[in-house]
Formats: sequence, C-alpha cells, structure tokens
Amino acid sequence: MSLIVQKFGGTSVANADRLKNVARIVTDTYKKGNSVVVVVSAQGDTTDDLIKKAAEINENPSSREMDVLLSSGEQISMSLLAMAIQKLGFPVVSLTGWQAGFSTKPEHGNARITKINTSRLKRELESKKIVIVAGFQGLNKFDDITTLGRGGSDTSAVAISAALHADLCQIYTDVDGVYTADPRLVKNAIKLDEISFDEMLELATLGAQVLHNRSVEMAKRYNINLEVLSSLENVPGTKVKEKIKMEKLLIRGVTRDDDIARIALLNIPDEPGFAYRIFSLMGKHNINVDIILQSIGRDSTKDISFTVPIDQMDLATNVLEKEKSSIGMGEIQVSDSVSKVSVVGAGMQSNPGVAAKLFEALFDAEINIHMISTSEIKISVLIDKKDSARAVDVIHEKFFD
Amino acid sequence: MSLIVQKFGGTSVANADRLKNVARIVTDTYKKGNSVVVVVSAQGDTTDDLIKKAAEINENPSSREMDVLLSSGEQISMSLLAMAIQKLGFPVVSLTGWQAGFSTKPEHGNARITKINTSRLKRELESKKIVIVAGFQGLNKFDDITTLGRGGSDTSAVAISAALHADLCQIYTDVDGVYTADPRLVKNAIKLDEISFDEMLELATLGAQVLHNRSVEMAKRYNINLEVLSSLENVPGTKVKEKIKMEKLLIRGVTRDDDIARIALLNIPDEPGFAYRIFSLMGKHNINVDIILQSIGRDSTKDISFTVPIDQMDLATNVLEKEKSSIGMGEIQVSDSVSKVSVVGAGMQSNPGVAAKLFEALFDAEINIHMISTSEIKISVLIDKKDSARAVDVIHEKFFD
Repeated sequence: MSLIVQKFGGTSVANADRLKNVARIVTDTYKKGNSVVVVVSAQGDTTDDLIKKAAEINENPSSREMDVLLSSGEQISMSLLAMAIQKLGFPVVSLTGWQAGFSTKPEHGNARITKINTSRLKRELESKKIVIVAGFQGLNKFDDITTLGRGGSDTSAVAISAALHADLCQIYTDVDGVYTADPRLVKNAIKLDEISFDEMLELATLGAQVLHNRSVEMAKRYNINLEVLSSLENVPGTKVKEKIKMEKLLIRGVTRDDDIARIALLNIPDEPGFAYRIFSLMGKHNINVDIILQSIGRDSTKDISFTVPIDQMDLATNVLEKEKSSIGMGEIQVSDSVSKVSVVGAGMQSNPGVAAKLFEALFDAEINIHMISTSEIKISVLIDKKDSARAVDVIHEKFFD
Repeated sequence: MSLIVQKFGGTSVANADRLKNVARIVTDTYKKGNSVVVVVSAQGDTTDDLIKKAAEINENPSSREMDVLLSSGEQISMSLLAMAIQKLGFPVVSLTGWQAGFSTKPEHGNARITKINTSRLKRELESKKIVIVAGFQGLNKFDDITTLGRGGSDTSAVAISAALHADLCQIYTDVDGVYTADPRLVKNAIKLDEISFDEMLELATLGAQVLHNRSVEMAKRYNINLEVLSSLENVPGTKVKEKIKMEKLLIRGVTRDDDIARIALLNIPDEPGFAYRIFSLMGKHNINVDIILQSIGRDSTKDISFTVPIDQMDLATNVLEKEKSSIGMGEIQVSDSVSKVSVVGAGMQSNPGVAAKLFEALFDAEINIHMISTSEIKISVLIDKKDSARAVDVIHEKFFD
C-alpha cells in the first residue's frame, strides 16, 4: 500500500464531466489499496472570472483581499470533487489550505510555504478517507489567507508529498507528459518516459510550462518522485526523479522563450565593480536578469548585455537611464525582437559535440546567433524572434530525427 | 461614537454597482465617526448557482461538503466589498466566519451559533478598520465550516451585535421597512416607523419575510436595537426594539400564509391522552404543527384539527394513516385549499374590539372562517385559499383606512 498525492489542474476539473472523470481516476487509485491525497486547482476559468469581477470594482485592490477572493476558487472545486467521489460511494473529505495545515510567509499573492501541520491530514487518512486539499493557498501568522502565486497548486502537491513522505506525486494536467519540444510547434516532438529534476528545472525555467519551477525545486530538495500525466487520456506520463536511466537521447528538450528583451550597455569604462553596480541596481528593483554577457575589453571600454523578461524591459531601461551619468555608462540599446532558444539534457555534460551540433543546425538554417550562454546541462542562444519557431524545429530535427 | 453593525443581503451586493453603493453607505457611516462591522450575504444568485453546480454532480451530496461549497459565496462578496471600500480610500479588512470567531454546533446546513470569539474583531476595530464579516457561516469543533441555514446572515449580524454590544444593528434589504401588509398585495399598506420584537416575531412567523425569526428572537434576547432599511433607497426604515412608542395603530400588520394544509381527525374517542399521542407522533417526525383546535366533546367522540406546512402534509397524513388503528382514530380529512390570515399588534391586548373588527370585515366580504386562533398579540383565522388575498385587503382597509 502506497501513499499517493494526485494533483489536478484547472482544465482537469473545469466542469461536471471533468470532475466525474477525476473522481474515477482518484477512486481507481484508492480501490487498489492506496491512501490518496488529492490537490485541486480552481475550475477552468474561475480564477480569471474572479479577477475580472475584482477589476470591475477596483483596478488596484490589496493583495490580501485578492487572496481572500481567489482562494474561494479552490474551495468550490474541492467540494464539488468531494461530491463526485461521494456519488461513487467512497469516503472523502475536502480541506481548505488552512484546514490542511498549510502555513506560509506573511506576504500575499506569492507566499512561500513555511510548514505543513499534518495532524488533520493524517487523521483523515487514518480513518480511510480520500482527502482533497485546496491547492494554491495557505494561512499566514496573522490568520490571513494567502495564495502561493503561479504554479501554486503544483507546489502544494509537492509540499504535501514531502510532509507526508508520499511514495509518488502525480501531476495530472492537460498534456500527457514532458516532450522534447512543444508538440504544438514541433510535430515530431517525442514524449519522454523519464527526466531528471535538473533537466526538468531547466525546461521549466525555459518555459515548457508543464511543471512550475518552484515545485520541481522542492521535489528535488525532498527527493519526491514526480509523474506528469494527462487526466484526459489514460496513457503513461513522464516520470521526474533524481536519477534516471541512461538513454540514448543526448538532450531532453528544445524550448524557446519569446517573452524576453535584450539590453546592451555599450562603451562602458573597463573598471572593476561596474557589473556589480549594474546588477545590484537591477536586483534592487526586482528585475529578473537572465543571460549576461560581457565582452572582452577593447581599448579602455567594454560592452555588457543581458536579457530581462519583456514586461520588465521598460522598468529596467528607466532605471538604467536615470543612473546613466552617475554610473558612467555609455549608450543603452534595447531590443524586444529577440528570443531565447535552448537545448537541455544532462547527457550533454559528457558529450562535447552538443554545442557544435546546435550551432550547425542554426548555421544550416541561416539563423544568426546574438548571444550564447551555457550551463552544465543547457545551452541557450539568443536569436531574432522571427526565427525562433524555425530554430526549435531545425534543432529538434538535428537531435531527434 | 457608536458601534454599528450593518448587514447587506444578496440583492444588495448582487453586482459591481450595488457593491459600490454599499461601500458608500458603509463609508458614510464610518465617516461620521462610528465603528462599523459589515455582514454580507453571497451575491444575488451565487448560492443558487452553486447549488445547481452541485446538483449536476451529486443529487444528494453530504451537507458537510455543501457547507464548504456554499460558504465560498460570502468569501467572494466580502472580498469584493472590501475592494470597493479600498477604492474609496478607507481602511478595511474582510473576515470569513472562522476568522471572525464564529463557533457553531457541529451539524451542517443549519448550525446554531454557540459563541463568538471577538478578539480579532475587536483588534481590527481598534486599528480603525471597517470590518467585513461573511454572514451565514461559522466553524464547528471539528474545524469544519458550517452554515447557519435560512436567514443565516441576519442571525450573524445580530449575534455580532450582541457579542460586541453594538449600539445598532441595521439590516439592509431590498424593501425599505416593515409594512402593515405586503405592499405588493395591498396598495394602501403603511410602512411602520417602529415595531416591537414580539410583534416582529409574529409577523416573521407569518411570512412577512423581512427578517428571519431566529434573528429577531436573538435580538429580543440580547435587546439589540434593530433597524430594517433599504440599501437601494435612502429613506428611513423600520426600527425593531423592546419598547416602542404608543401609537394610534391598534395593529401592526395583516399577513397571510397560503402554504399550509389543514388536517382534521374526526370521531375520535373522548379519552385523556389522545392529543398527547397525536402530537408526540407529529413531533417525532419533525412535523411543524401550527394552529390546533379541539371541538367540545359530543356523545363520546370529539374532533381535533390542526394545520401543518403544505410540504409536510403528505408526511403527516402517512404517519397518521399508519397509526390510525393503533391509536383508535376515526376519519382523517386533509385539505390544502386553506390559508391563514392574521392580524398582529401589541395594541390589541388592551383593545377587545380587535377580534370583532376582524370578524366584521370578513363577514362584510362574505368570507367564511374555518378556524380561529388567538394569542396575546395575534389573531389568526383559517379561510379558503381563494379568499386569502381579498381577506388581507378588506381587513387592512378596516383597520388602516
């Protein structure tokens, strides 16, 4: 007998039929003799509908009240799922975040889980109930409801898995696993049977959007066996774990991120401490800097360029313009017509040919590379946005066909 | 400076415009230097929508999960109202039932409030915040969410008023006060400036539907000054309190209840203990018996007749039929074509002419009276349902024109 945590996202519980389907998946798992904890998101568009309702009243409501509002979404989906499970004749109880013992940091809208008091969860499991828990929410030390931010329900599921030492954490979603590229974009994309935490982390960061990074980080830290699978199709998904079987695949995936901008600082004095000043300035304004490149000094000047999320481009530019003279910068160039394309795979560590193969694919397709950034298991290139879809295609073909 | 509790029902918070209107009423009260606690119901049709969602999944869900589901309704309306008040620039916090300290009995769907722990309410009021509280809900000793049943938000408001020793409890609704008759039915119906608790209780029982009985009982017990007024029109409402000014009005109102049935037991042996057996049988099946009449014995038999809510008529009849022979009853006659029409007023105690005036009005209109029942401040008559609207009209005219 195992303890299994199953998480179902918004599309999986979007309506009565979907909820009944989820009830079947959950009770099938329970019938096999497993203890089951189910984590649910709000139904389909509920969150968007609630946000719209709020916007009609106040375009800038406090994040505390937004959390009160949004957390009602999971309260609705969890009770409806409980009713669907009751209908099938199984014992079940639904718990809000605070009832399930989720404590978080004080801040609203994007709170971190600090602790899960599992006493009620354990008591309900011991009485043989299927336990449904509202994802995405907790309670802070002021007894106020908090929400966990994007991907919060995944994080809830992994955190419960860690707290209860679950044998498996299944993330049910509307795709049936992790692919080597976005299957909507690359028709030959291959579904992976397994992927390591580190690879999944790189893929998540790069926008694969199957699992949120925070949940993968937590799963890695507590060594939780994750599985990504479809609630709509009964097919094997992708297992995410610490050590995976060696496979012939050099890389795990090709991804792109079109929502970035490049900022280049040209003709900067070649003095120590300059990069420090720039990036502490960015950090102070919570600007999320990704790829950073610094040119080798020429004469007495150098160039620094880096990427930021496109929605922080204006903020970053304004901050830099304001400090331009005091820091002693030269010209600031900004471009939002760039994309980041990356290949990810733990296998590349021992295969020096990966970078060459990537560059060859882009060269053959006459796609120009602006910046290159590498980590142990990832290579990213910055290219023109207009080329990004084609780049994913030709790179995927190079590695997988 | 006073502490004022304001309760707004579902129609008062039905949409963004209504919520903004409520925010104005609340902040106007706050601006005058008062401490304000606001109790809200779920928005307009939210509760019905949630019930419909549940019915699509399970026609007989557990009442525990229904409470989880339904309580999300007030969580939505209270946070939206908080946002509307923030928009006007005032400090505000919204609290769920459990955050506001509402403890209830264990049962779901119709739980009684057992205690309000006011520490958080007081802390928020001391920090000069407008405090919004979700009506209709609390927490039982198992840390499960409960709901208070019909009229629950009124009860929440009165209970908070009692716990905080509020100076006034204002019940905002979609009518502007308590009338001498249903204004939709009787065009000359008069709005009352004041009414006593006992009179209001009789009116509420009789279906005036402005205030729920439970909340009036509680207001009477704790001597809370109530006021019923409209959230849509800025006009004075009706004050409900222990002692009211003597007015010329003999009676406070004329009401009718068409949703009753009469059950008559004929030719019953004239023996002691018979009524006891009948009505303990009704009580055992939770059948709500109202008017009871017993005829004076004739020969060795008598008749007993009584009224029940129309939706309990079949149950009552079945129960009686089953026990007919064991109890030794004669014929059972059932009629659902009756209505109860009542006049209510503390003034009638010292005015013996009220009953005569009522009977005269019905006699003039050629309306036949089947049963009569009187209390210190109420006279009810049972008449044919087809005559009930006309009866209210002629009685109202007799007393008020």
